[in-house]
Amino acid sequence: MAIKYPIPDIQVNKKSNVRTHGMLFENSLNLSNEYYLMHNVAIIHKKPTPVQVVRVDYPSRTRARISEAYYKQPSTTDYNGIYRGKYIDYEAKETVNLSFSFKHIFDHQLIHLKKVNEQGGMAFVIIYFKKVNEIYIIHIADFLTLMQQGLKSVTIEKAKEIGKFVKQGYAPLIDYLKAVDEMFFDNSQSK
Amino acid sequence: MAIKYPIPDIQVNKKSNVRTHGMLFENSLNLSNEYYLMHNVAIIHKKPTPVQVVRVDYPSRTRARISEAYYKQPSTTDYNGIYRGKYIDYEAKETVNLSFSFKHIFDHQLIHLKKVNEQGGMAFVIIYFKKVNEIYIIHIADFLTLMQQGLKSVTIEKAKEIGKFVKQGYAPLIDYLKAVDEMFFDNSQSK
Repeated sequence: MAIKYPIPDIQVNKKSNVRTHGMLFENSLNLSNEYYLMHNVAIIHKKPTPVQVVRVDYPSRTRARISEAYYKQPSTTDYNGIYRGKYIDYEAKETVNLSFSFKHIFDHQLIHLKKVNEQGGMAFVIIYFKKVNEIYIIHIADFLTLMQQGLKSVTIEKAKEIGKFVKQGYAPLIDYLKAVDEMFFDNSQSK
Repeated sequence: MAIKYPIPDIQVNKKSNVRTHGMLFENSLNLSNEYYLMHNVAIIHKKPTPVQVVRVDYPSRTRARISEAYYKQPSTTDYNGIYRGKYIDYEAKETVNLSFSFKHIFDHQLIHLKKVNEQGGMAFVIIYFKKVNEIYIIHIADFLTLMQQGLKSVTIEKAKEIGKFVKQGYAPLIDYLKAVDEMFFDNSQSK
């Protein structure tokens, strides 16, 4: 069941030998979600990375030490929860380029987001373009349309055109729910 | 960050030395959720068990082997997703006794479910009473009321009285969304 862990842009922290890919963006998102939670705005959590545990040792009665395990392919997306009474679900991605290549997102994650959209949930992809320090959310329906058009990636210009810009600040660091408001609440057009 | 993994009723599979607590109930729930997913009834997934990874080896370029990790306390509940356009969130528990002791559920999980309820989501605890092979769902508001009354556990009689009975069958094995219909949709009383 062990698979190649296919997230792009992986950096290995040489000291502890633990993966630290995409940490700044992910941590900032997590902090923003903590802020939303504390202020009763939304309840959104990152799902733990799935791990296939093969061997566990018990060096003491109360402590279990996993001594062999492998990363598994996640079955859904990174984040989900509830906002303004509605189900919210998204995948967070970042790129060092000025376009985000579709090969860096799993088919089953896209299918999951498509189904969420069909069931009436809010489903999107949030992309951090590191080079220009800009963040956009793109509705899953629009994201899939690009793929169906045969495109291989979404450029930052395209993200600007079809997505919603996400403002960065201090509290929260990434105020993406403002963009969610614009996308899913301000105009009541359904996709 | 390593903690004692506090789930009751843990059995260690001697052969592989991997925890297999509550497998039948959990696996049956997971299969039921797969059934619901396949039939476009609901999108509900079990969250992966959170693991604190300390050391990763790379025996080959493509394979990462976690060689030291510890179980972490989950920050939320086991299951969440979307059903009938609404956010759904629950914790699954089982007991060999005829009452479920409140010490086997985390405070922060109860707080999480309480918040979900306040935000308009469907939040409950699903309990499998192994001895009599009966399953009930209990609304988080009712669950918390029992605790506030100073009770130390919920008996099966109480579960029968305040909860909804969950029918078992073949497809799905545990048809708990029927009970969810009764609890959250048939009467429109809010709690």
